[in-house]
Amino acid sequence: MAVDPKALVQRYLDTVASGTADDVAALYAEDATLEDPVGGGEVHIGRHAIAGFYKNTDGVEISTELLTIRVGGNEAAFLFAITVGGAMRIEPIEIMTFNHDGQIASMKAYWGPDDVTQL
Amino acid sequence: MAVDPKALVQRYLDTVASGTADDVAALYAEDATLEDPVGGGEVHIGRHAIAGFYKNTDGVEISTELLTIRVGGNEAAFLFAITVGGAMRIEPIEIMTFNHDGQIASMKAYWGPDDVTQL
Repeated sequence: MAVDPKALVQRYLDTVASGTADDVAALYAEDATLEDPVGGGEVHIGRHAIAGFYKNTDGVEISTELLTIRVGGNEAAFLFAITVGGAMRIEPIEIMTFNHDGQIASMKAYWGPDDVTQL
Repeated sequence: MAVDPKALVQRYLDTVASGTADDVAALYAEDATLEDPVGGGEVHIGRHAIAGFYKNTDGVEISTELLTIRVGGNEAAFLFAITVGGAMRIEPIEIMTFNHDGQIASMKAYWGPDDVTQL
């Protein structure tokens, strides 16, 4: 199956905005890894741990906006904005790799305090 | 030694613009890896191979501009513009990891035909 990283990233951002933590986790491979933020010292391994990570914002109003994206092979690098609870806007750069089934195999989110705006 | 990825990325972009291929390669660790573009099917391994990669543009007028950067730990993700020979502007997203000596341990450049503008 041909993988379209650009479409998969958009689906991911739409699901982060409108889905539950389990909906987002379902986009990941069973053995996927997630590091957010990079350098934070914690890597979440496996879909169950990843669902736990997204549960931090379950029930919080979230919107997302893709700002720019680059793709190569089964990978994507993209800059996007995420607004959390109408109170905080963060602009991370994320790297995602996809497996041949179009599932997210790994995600790394690069951002820090300088990339957060209080609204 | 504490590593400052933001300063190291700026030094890299300055050296790409004003230095030789060997100057750029000297910023990389002896056993570094370089993939540019990601998905292109070729990974350059080691400083010698990396110098060969940058020799493609030796003698060509190059300018670079950092557009935005995110850092985490010893890693950086950044969007920048590179103008080659006054004829072509490319806007890649790159990921760099640094070792504890501040050398580039790995570089991956995400871009494709859509990210190239003929000037």
